[in-house]
Amino acid sequence: MPGIITLAHGSGGRGTYEILESLILSHLSDPMKRIEGGVGVDELDDGAAIPLPDGKYVVFSIDAYTVNPPFFPGGNIGELAASGTINDILMMGAKPLAILDSIVVEEGYPISELRQITNSMLEILKRYDIKLIGGDFKAMPRGNLDKILITTAGMGIAEHLIIDSNLAPGDKIIISGTIAEHGAAILAAQEGLKVEGRLKSDTEPLVDLMLPLLENYGEFIHAAQDPTRGGIAEVLNEWASKSNLLIRVSEGDVPIREEVRSFTELMGIDPFNLACEGRAVLAVDPRVAEEVLRFIRDLGFSDASIVGNAEESSRYGGNVVLKTVAGGLRLLERPTGSIVPRIC
Amino acid sequence: MPGIITLAHGSGGRGTYEILESLILSHLSDPMKRIEGGVGVDELDDGAAIPLPDGKYVVFSIDAYTVNPPFFPGGNIGELAASGTINDILMMGAKPLAILDSIVVEEGYPISELRQITNSMLEILKRYDIKLIGGDFKAMPRGNLDKILITTAGMGIAEHLIIDSNLAPGDKIIISGTIAEHGAAILAAQEGLKVEGRLKSDTEPLVDLMLPLLENYGEFIHAAQDPTRGGIAEVLNEWASKSNLLIRVSEGDVPIREEVRSFTELMGIDPFNLACEGRAVLAVDPRVAEEVLRFIRDLGFSDASIVGNAEESSRYGGNVVLKTVAGGLRLLERPTGSIVPRIC
Repeated sequence: MPGIITLAHGSGGRGTYEILESLILSHLSDPMKRIEGGVGVDELDDGAAIPLPDGKYVVFSIDAYTVNPPFFPGGNIGELAASGTINDILMMGAKPLAILDSIVVEEGYPISELRQITNSMLEILKRYDIKLIGGDFKAMPRGNLDKILITTAGMGIAEHLIIDSNLAPGDKIIISGTIAEHGAAILAAQEGLKVEGRLKSDTEPLVDLMLPLLENYGEFIHAAQDPTRGGIAEVLNEWASKSNLLIRVSEGDVPIREEVRSFTELMGIDPFNLACEGRAVLAVDPRVAEEVLRFIRDLGFSDASIVGNAEESSRYGGNVVLKTVAGGLRLLERPTGSIVPRIC
Repeated sequence: MPGIITLAHGSGGRGTYEILESLILSHLSDPMKRIEGGVGVDELDDGAAIPLPDGKYVVFSIDAYTVNPPFFPGGNIGELAASGTINDILMMGAKPLAILDSIVVEEGYPISELRQITNSMLEILKRYDIKLIGGDFKAMPRGNLDKILITTAGMGIAEHLIIDSNLAPGDKIIISGTIAEHGAAILAAQEGLKVEGRLKSDTEPLVDLMLPLLENYGEFIHAAQDPTRGGIAEVLNEWASKSNLLIRVSEGDVPIREEVRSFTELMGIDPFNLACEGRAVLAVDPRVAEEVLRFIRDLGFSDASIVGNAEESSRYGGNVVLKTVAGGLRLLERPTGSIVPRIC
């Protein structure tokens, strides 16, 4: 793979997969990619897992957070860095226990703004009693970094792992809330649009959704992911591809706020490709899917909806098919760099 | 603390401590800083630790690596990112088992160079059978990041933790090799000096030093640290301060290559403040210190030396005193931003 790094390599979609495969995955033997019996780097899941002697798993995840602007309607990069990693741990089926943070700041950045960012991060950790057990702090010379980059590593314990490749035929796909809120809010901020609260990031840790869900329905949740880079189009395509199943989605059932829909239409962007930072996509055993949906709504996630299902298909296995509001069918493609707007 | 972030905040010395205290540590109650019974963020040690039911500890660490230039005499940022985090795990007394990496690259960066960097990182992991269990990859728009930033989180298991605050009166201070090599090599590269192999980074994982040492003398190693940012002056001051002991160092016993000494004299820099990336500073029980020194030298670390000792002192507790080659005594001060040359 000659050439140079493009933004598409960081889109979270096919470009990211290809560069990871070329630079990392293809150079490691299978035993080098995981602790035996655990989940390794080649699963490309939300995190890694290491088996414990008692049958549980320690789950780890790492993620670098850059966002432009670092303060946006509905949150800031500190909230994002805490929520994102907490959500990655949760989506592996684990209870988040601790994080480590690495903050890199550009020389000249106002300490008052940095304080708002760290306060937001700490507030989230305190709310859910997730310990900050270690960290790193560095400054880079002016011009060498655009403001701030925060990397968080999270750690949790799972009774049962949720592995995205466990998607099973018949599974119902549930989305926990309205989509594309984060992506739309960031894009609007970048465009300088005065949206006055009509577009607002959904950045939020999903502890209050996932812990009760894991406790009551853990074994029935076959796959779980937070649809960040590449949005739900990316998540559903990853799932379909890993399990070689066809996923059908009914566009009219996908919860989306009217303001977000209008904004994406105005911008000519597919909201299915836009990041959420406080939503879960779940694949649930069909025998309990309706019950799980009621349970989720009763937890306060009132926009949660069943949006589709997974099925075997010799012809379309590995794909995601969208039934449009107009009644047509179209492939919901895996996002590539050119169609995912850059939000960081 | 009003104002703006300066490079001194990222020096690893007093400035870093002050901003971490102001932004993070002072806002967290004690139980929020650690998993109960473990080592938390406020220890400011090489990593964090979580107790296991069998009496062992899981050790974690995170570190962001930036270095200008990313390729330098003796290594590159990939080797550095692997070695640095492996060393942090080792210095906590743990055997490194796995790492997670987060790579952030500037748009336009040559993939051929990135491949050399990831190859170097993977080579080190393979050499020591340390698994790469997870990761993240992002690209930032051109101009928003100077080339590349790699954050690594490491994980290992310790039978006995090595906590820097356990420094005891009488302990002998051992340095495993010549100092200031990394810092000098980077500075020379930044100055554009043609040093033709005379200055070369010491970047190296210390697995072959620390694992045998832990196995044979684990309980006698009271403190261990790799003297990175701020050099051995920073490490020794941290230790003296945490234990309120006086550390005496004999300048003439500190191993330093003649080329490095000449270079630092030329530049007007104190080599005690310059980073190593492949050295350990150890505080060893005096009853076995000479034996441990021979053991270390027999492992191939032929420049290892006993350079001083720790002692109680009502007047100078918390300080580091250097006996100079000329026979005088001076305080070896904790580095501050203004005296630590910027190497990243």
